Amino acid sequence: MHPFDLTILGCSSATPTSSRNPTAQILNQHERYFLIDCGEATQIQLRRFKLKMQRIDHIFISHLHGDHYLGLPGLLGSMHLLGREKELHIYSPPGLEEIIAINHHYSKSHLNYKLVFHAIESQARILEDDKMSVDTIPMNHRIPCYGFLFREKPNLRNIIKEKIEQYSIQVQDIPAIKEGKDIVSAEGKTISNAELTTDPAPPRSYAYCSDTIYNESYIGQIKDADMLYHEATFGSEMIDRAKETYHCTAKEAATIALKANVKRLIIGHYSARYRDLSPLLAEAKEVFANTVLAIEGEKYSV
Amino acid sequence: MHPFDLTILGCSSATPTSSRNPTAQILNQHERYFLIDCGEATQIQLRRFKLKMQRIDHIFISHLHGDHYLGLPGLLGSMHLLGREKELHIYSPPGLEEIIAINHHYSKSHLNYKLVFHAIESQARILEDDKMSVDTIPMNHRIPCYGFLFREKPNLRNIIKEKIEQYSIQVQDIPAIKEGKDIVSAEGKTISNAELTTDPAPPRSYAYCSDTIYNESYIGQIKDADMLYHEATFGSEMIDRAKETYHCTAKEAATIALKANVKRLIIGHYSARYRDLSPLLAEAKEVFANTVLAIEGEKYSV
Repeated sequence: MHPFDLTILGCSSATPTSSRNPTAQILNQHERYFLIDCGEATQIQLRRFKLKMQRIDHIFISHLHGDHYLGLPGLLGSMHLLGREKELHIYSPPGLEEIIAINHHYSKSHLNYKLVFHAIESQARILEDDKMSVDTIPMNHRIPCYGFLFREKPNLRNIIKEKIEQYSIQVQDIPAIKEGKDIVSAEGKTISNAELTTDPAPPRSYAYCSDTIYNESYIGQIKDADMLYHEATFGSEMIDRAKETYHCTAKEAATIALKANVKRLIIGHYSARYRDLSPLLAEAKEVFANTVLAIEGEKYSV
Repeated sequence: MHPFDLTILGCSSATPTSSRNPTAQILNQHERYFLIDCGEATQIQLRRFKLKMQRIDHIFISHLHGDHYLGLPGLLGSMHLLGREKELHIYSPPGLEEIIAINHHYSKSHLNYKLVFHAIESQARILEDDKMSVDTIPMNHRIPCYGFLFREKPNLRNIIKEKIEQYSIQVQDIPAIKEGKDIVSAEGKTISNAELTTDPAPPRSYAYCSDTIYNESYIGQIKDADMLYHEATFGSEMIDRAKETYHCTAKEAATIALKANVKRLIIGHYSARYRDLSPLLAEAKEVFANTVLAIEGEKYSV
């Protein structure tokens, strides 16, 4: 199967710590990199984990709190200095284009590639191609904020090798067969697709939910996702602070995972107060057993 | 003597490398921290080197290229989240206030402390108190850019301990004596200051010069400085590129040090192309022997 995995570049909430950076992740599908949020020092983390920045063509910014986008101006500048020419798409709530523009105005900077800004203002499909679709997931935070649902397009059917010889199948017929079409043999006989192929691997999906106060409004949207990253800024002992700041506890993140029937949960966006993350993990696991911690540099297969 | 030393937080030019961060330095005078430039990830470097961010009351930004200021919004936010209430002074060419304001507008952020912006538009004394003066040094770069000259105020004279007993000097007279005043003894006899004190250590100075094309216009201003940091983005083999981008070679930095008769030169702001910095050091030392490399985390006493 083609790669479809996530690398955590940063998993701290607002203030970074000496061991945790602000939010950023790379989703790798078919060796295309999708950058999800871009906290300060994202470009440094990319280098550290040997992920090629020029492989990123789409950047998704959940919201305009600094810990989710302040690494963007530096990354854009480095992409330019390192010779980028292909266009780059940036999806975020409105405002980011203006922020980048004023930085470039004062630095008299010009990028040798085209930036295409896509303003997110509702639940919508913001990207779709032959391999993937991306939908926004409205969060409930202090400012406009969106999660993202990445879904593979249905995979092509697998041709049974022996059938190619058996029916003398021509190369030019293979794409149609993979798409589920029957064929007609040289003798004029229809051979059903079911005889020629096996079911493909089911399309995989990854849901990214950060930042938000606990709310069940998006459970339907992320239903049955293969992997869910959900913010878990606090432990339950800080539930009041979580509500006040429009964040979730680890237990709440796990409750969402349970209700949405996802296959696996990654928690992250930890408050700097937690040096030891095991209490957050334990709390989540009590509700949803298949929970893991987001750890910088770790790769998680969807 | 009171501490007067410099810690390098970042010494890379525009694009950071896996081992070098963009420009930032902490000058520590009397345990007051002056932050000089604030490239991306400065707050992370401060934590890494265990330098308390709240001890910074003055931030000096040489110019508005991203590698010299993009760490500022994140640092300001963390200072707020960590409880800062005392005001913070920021000195930079015009524009920074607008950049910070637009970030705060979209993030709906409010700082619990006062930011005081000081726009630099010429060669001027921008800070002066009883311990230190700071002057701007006009550089010649692609956009308005200033270096900074930090000079200790003359130190107080040292009282000779035995004289205190010998002349029964009262505690309340000591400040005046340290300032060079004579005293009159109980018997009405004038005792000259020269008999009571020895010369203080001469005031120390640190000059920061980055970014600039080679130009001798500021040599008079940095004359005899105890320590000079000078950008040395390239080696002499890249002299054309240095001129084109308004930067200096290591040899040019050393030439400035030599002509200004400084005591020690630190070179930095290295292009990412130099993994091994020893050729830059060797080139500078040929012209000015007392040259050292800027290394992140290293402390240099003025």
